[in-house]
Amino acid sequence: MPDAFLAQLAAITGPGYFLTGADEMAGYLLEPRALFHGTARAVVRPGTTAEVAAIAALCHAQGVAIVPQGGNTGLVGGQIPDGSGRQIILSLTRLTRIRETDLAANCMIVEAGVTLLRAQQAADAADRLFPLSLASEGSCTIGGNLSTNAGGTAVLAYGNARDLVMGLEVVLADGRILNNLSKLKKDNTGYDLKHLFMGAEGTLGIITAASLKLFPKPRAIATAFIGLHSPAAALDLLALAQEELGASVKTFELMPRIGIEFVLRHSPGSREPLVQRHDWYVLLELTDSSFSGLENKLADLLQAAMEKGLIEDASPAQSLAQRDAFWAMRENLSEVQKLEGGSIKHDVSLPIAAVPAFLTQVEGFVTEMIPGARLVAFGHLGDGNIHCNVSQPVGADKAGFLARWHEVNEAVHAIVVAMHGSFSAEHGIGTLKRDLLARYKDPVALDLMRAIKATLDPKGIMNPGKVL
Amino acid sequence: MPDAFLAQLAAITGPGYFLTGADEMAGYLLEPRALFHGTARAVVRPGTTAEVAAIAALCHAQGVAIVPQGGNTGLVGGQIPDGSGRQIILSLTRLTRIRETDLAANCMIVEAGVTLLRAQQAADAADRLFPLSLASEGSCTIGGNLSTNAGGTAVLAYGNARDLVMGLEVVLADGRILNNLSKLKKDNTGYDLKHLFMGAEGTLGIITAASLKLFPKPRAIATAFIGLHSPAAALDLLALAQEELGASVKTFELMPRIGIEFVLRHSPGSREPLVQRHDWYVLLELTDSSFSGLENKLADLLQAAMEKGLIEDASPAQSLAQRDAFWAMRENLSEVQKLEGGSIKHDVSLPIAAVPAFLTQVEGFVTEMIPGARLVAFGHLGDGNIHCNVSQPVGADKAGFLARWHEVNEAVHAIVVAMHGSFSAEHGIGTLKRDLLARYKDPVALDLMRAIKATLDPKGIMNPGKVL
Repeated sequence: MPDAFLAQLAAITGPGYFLTGADEMAGYLLEPRALFHGTARAVVRPGTTAEVAAIAALCHAQGVAIVPQGGNTGLVGGQIPDGSGRQIILSLTRLTRIRETDLAANCMIVEAGVTLLRAQQAADAADRLFPLSLASEGSCTIGGNLSTNAGGTAVLAYGNARDLVMGLEVVLADGRILNNLSKLKKDNTGYDLKHLFMGAEGTLGIITAASLKLFPKPRAIATAFIGLHSPAAALDLLALAQEELGASVKTFELMPRIGIEFVLRHSPGSREPLVQRHDWYVLLELTDSSFSGLENKLADLLQAAMEKGLIEDASPAQSLAQRDAFWAMRENLSEVQKLEGGSIKHDVSLPIAAVPAFLTQVEGFVTEMIPGARLVAFGHLGDGNIHCNVSQPVGADKAGFLARWHEVNEAVHAIVVAMHGSFSAEHGIGTLKRDLLARYKDPVALDLMRAIKATLDPKGIMNPGKVL
Repeated sequence: MPDAFLAQLAAITGPGYFLTGADEMAGYLLEPRALFHGTARAVVRPGTTAEVAAIAALCHAQGVAIVPQGGNTGLVGGQIPDGSGRQIILSLTRLTRIRETDLAANCMIVEAGVTLLRAQQAADAADRLFPLSLASEGSCTIGGNLSTNAGGTAVLAYGNARDLVMGLEVVLADGRILNNLSKLKKDNTGYDLKHLFMGAEGTLGIITAASLKLFPKPRAIATAFIGLHSPAAALDLLALAQEELGASVKTFELMPRIGIEFVLRHSPGSREPLVQRHDWYVLLELTDSSFSGLENKLADLLQAAMEKGLIEDASPAQSLAQRDAFWAMRENLSEVQKLEGGSIKHDVSLPIAAVPAFLTQVEGFVTEMIPGARLVAFGHLGDGNIHCNVSQPVGADKAGFLARWHEVNEAVHAIVVAMHGSFSAEHGIGTLKRDLLARYKDPVALDLMRAIKATLDPKGIMNPGKVL
């Protein structure tokens, strides 16, 4: 009785938030890069946790699959329905309340549809820091960030998204509400349930709200652009920095010369960051809760690194404008690759010590496979997370190069797995990497995951076909 | 066929590590304070993960219950078998290898039977810090620490035990081995399974090894003993300290005047810590990765707090001897209560802002219930974790006072639950608090816990009767 079902669905949210027209659903069915596209029976936009629960209960009773969706910025297709037209999209974007800010507990209770940027701004207005930071922060939502355990640029100092959470409110597959919006720093009353839902990409339940950790705002920032001869030297510099400055080391981004050249070639206004050219570069940023002394610490560190022969040159930012120019060099790295032709991407992480050997192996393998291919490997060295991209040979046919995407992926992932790394460091599994998960994950872990899925979602209505 | 079973068990470990005699089992059957006591069919002491797995597989096939045990220091009975004589104790104390120390990844892979002290020492020898720190660290083991998600004195800066783990190796109920000894800081390949086993008290599987996070060693420490007029003022001081000094605030311990008086009365060599008497005291300790400047930061903080009227007096430690004397004041607080007669204990935590109102309510309630009873509430204010102890009235009958243990617990826990706190902040559930869990835990969370237990341990052989 499809009509009766849709009528019941519409009655929960009211007709204004129940969409079935092709035009009004279009934006929810297509991922912004147009890589993932699906169809849906309806899009519902509940405004409260109770409405989310009512929708889940109804779908559970009728056996209708739900695809939860936040800001629709995921990169692996987790938020897009399949092509059957039988699934519904449950958009969380109307759950936008910041329910509470508790400065003594250093926490903030926000609903799933709050954008990351708004959560950051709310923390800032309360003289606190919510440190999660991503390229898509203007449109991605807290619910999506937690469901995918987002990473970003502050993981080195503050951890991944799951580390920033004290508690969750979750609507389960059958519509029951798990209320775990804790503000407690210590609570040993039974199993930790919240971590199950984070990183599960909506396959075990729907996160509707979270109790987020807040941090003191840093008062001082010191930034340097550093030239060095190898990733191994960068690793030694990271170790020295953490030894001398501990948690003050907030950013440690590795970049190859070729990436800098791409930026110089394509980004208007960019300039050679150091006097000489260097094979590799590091963007280092320190933060501290005290106002003074951080520049001196940075200078001492760079001096010590120079004396140990770890670095060839370094330029501490002398102004905010110079700091912005250094960051632009790093942030433009993704964009400028598009102007150099086709680029085959990977989102991998490794045990940190293995990064130099990994880069050498990948470069050798890829250039043997595709002579002239250019490895542009950069990223969060402090997390072992490398955006291992391969740009096409100069003058080669773009389509022909991109046709080898799968083959290059296979080779790179084989090296990653052999080195005990991860083939999905930040972006998750979705539909894109489901086969990789089935192939590479420890079979015992896979069995446990399937058993937990069957227990929490016995009818298989929670984002089916994703992850598992 | 009990004999055949025991023979198979003995064949796994070899006869030297298979105990059935009353004398040789005695130390495993009794918890050190003699509050929990059980009987067992045998104690087995496997030496490798493979042996643990073989024991689990055998017990699974035969339906024999396993009680995992580490250093036998747990305070809620989780490591002690029941009185049936049908359970076996699986002692992890022979799994004592430190398998690997990876300084680049800042991690150390240790087996479950390594004592916390030895793990700390191994980190120290590698010029790193493993920050977990507990009173029982000389005998408790990493496996037990993680199975109970231990807390301790460094939670404010470094988190609970679960926050210090990158990956686990776990033997499941049926003897399969989950290998999740990751050294990756970012890995979004499926559900997070490790957090399920931490804090589960051995009811879902047996942790046999862990990949632990290491931290840079602090280079500077600055300590002060502070007098102030109320817990509310202490909260304001904590907020100011975190605002000014962020992650440098390592210890923030609240103590009442009555506790200091107990110490002065009973601890030889103890002296009044400040010139005047104060209603409340705070032991504050800062650490920093840089060698210099921390004393000045502490002095600035105390000056600012004085000007704001938050504190009445403060004494920064001028020597290591003075620092030790300050710490002894805090550490002796537990011991000296025994010399003041009966003491009724609670292990509770609260949203931090609620602590002052909680203390007022408890004091009012308890002294109304038992005139002359003396509230000795102290602990980790920065975590909202208060050791809320009630000493008997001076001159009262000890046994008569202790007979009211349950009644006092009931009243205190009711206040805790009404304030959204936890009735087990650090120590877990075990058998001691199983009824409280069933009564106070969110019923949806309880249902989920039971469903997960049934999925991971369908025959109910993993530490049955504990937690759930």
